[in-house]
Amino acid sequence: MKQSLVIVKVGGAVVEQPDTLKKLLADFVQIPGYKILVHGGGRSATALCSKLGIESRMVDGRRITDAETLKVVTMVYGGLVNKNIVAGLQASAVNAIGLTGADSDVIRAAKRPVGDIDYGYVGDVVSVNAAFLASLLESGTVPVLAPLTHDGQGQMLNTNADTIAAETAKALSAFFKVSLVYCFEKPGVLLKPDDDSSVIPYISYYDFPRLVDDGTISGGMIPKIQNAFNALNAGVSSVLITSASALDKFEGTTIAL
Amino acid sequence: MKQSLVIVKVGGAVVEQPDTLKKLLADFVQIPGYKILVHGGGRSATALCSKLGIESRMVDGRRITDAETLKVVTMVYGGLVNKNIVAGLQASAVNAIGLTGADSDVIRAAKRPVGDIDYGYVGDVVSVNAAFLASLLESGTVPVLAPLTHDGQGQMLNTNADTIAAETAKALSAFFKVSLVYCFEKPGVLLKPDDDSSVIPYISYYDFPRLVDDGTISGGMIPKIQNAFNALNAGVSSVLITSASALDKFEGTTIAL
Repeated sequence: MKQSLVIVKVGGAVVEQPDTLKKLLADFVQIPGYKILVHGGGRSATALCSKLGIESRMVDGRRITDAETLKVVTMVYGGLVNKNIVAGLQASAVNAIGLTGADSDVIRAAKRPVGDIDYGYVGDVVSVNAAFLASLLESGTVPVLAPLTHDGQGQMLNTNADTIAAETAKALSAFFKVSLVYCFEKPGVLLKPDDDSSVIPYISYYDFPRLVDDGTISGGMIPKIQNAFNALNAGVSSVLITSASALDKFEGTTIAL
Repeated sequence: MKQSLVIVKVGGAVVEQPDTLKKLLADFVQIPGYKILVHGGGRSATALCSKLGIESRMVDGRRITDAETLKVVTMVYGGLVNKNIVAGLQASAVNAIGLTGADSDVIRAAKRPVGDIDYGYVGDVVSVNAAFLASLLESGTVPVLAPLTHDGQGQMLNTNADTIAAETAKALSAFFKVSLVYCFEKPGVLLKPDDDSSVIPYISYYDFPRLVDDGTISGGMIPKIQNAFNALNAGVSSVLITSASALDKFEGTTIAL
């Protein structure tokens, strides 16, 4: 029987502020068994771009990544944010290791083709080195993944952290029973957008079209839930949408086939 | 019998410029067997500090590291420089992994006590996780070490790359026959400072005091050679002082007991 693995994705807002990072790490430390943390860092990247006079351009929540912006995200995601998380986990006796996709070829990607929009140095995931990640986990190490990949030709690429989490979860499903946990600002998918107590506990593949049709699920939440179904179809055991502040209770919206 | 391990330390000037980095990586790739690369990145750190309006203060070649400077070096050393090297080695089919001291607790340090000078967030090495580095090497992975450590309490620290290389070499001498290679601007220790062809091929423990007395070895080279003797006394098999551009020939000044 496969052992359980929990993959937690947290956005930049949580990991970039000392107080919310501290709570997140305390909650993450408590998760038993095998685990991986995937983080963002967009706000710090935007702030550093601003200080350096580099314009931050976003399209549908994706950062247009020119050469200068790539340097910034490589520094912020791969250096500042990743290493502060790793050092914080080490202080809690969690043997964390920070990785970008280039490290041990963990996540290889292809530069996104230029279509209507030129995203620049943005990578779409091609392969995940699941065997290496599995060997780290089995040796008691906890990978902390930054949202950066490489193309195998020497080029670093910027890759969305939600995608990193989903692709890693899919690939590791060959080795583990994988639970994928997405932490957002809200404690789950809400029935009423302004009421945090209206969390929908369970969304099945059959409920989903109806909830989109009646407007309950809209905007950026639609692709997120579609990605969750993709992950489930690819072998991931469960997907939970919650907030970082509710991570300790493991409550939220469960997406299920 | 122990297998051979080569640890190459290169300064920031080499790894921060695309052309010299490219040659370095090509030469490093050719080194047979187990190997580790340790890099600096000071010029990029100084340049980013300058852009951000942070004053770079150096004492005896050591960077005074206040909280803002620590963020910069964590970004530059741990992110930008380290990941570009790793991606470059991956493109040459070298399975590199970038590590700071925090990652898998590879190098733990203590914040330097405030004496006549307050160096700020600078760490003196306490321990090296040689077993983990040895396991990576034996699995065919090539560690690329950034000059950053952590204190085990969640604090990243800035640590001199020469020291990282020497301490790593000492610790790994328990597992391997270690050759430590320091790359500087010059092709070795020179008999005549302005004549690059006047490399002293061999400096023994008995030659050293004489060469200091007669002024052949002076300034910053004295502590470097002292550190080399310390490494040899701690079990390192050989220390070579050369330039990055001569790395392919493995010539330079050999320091020997």
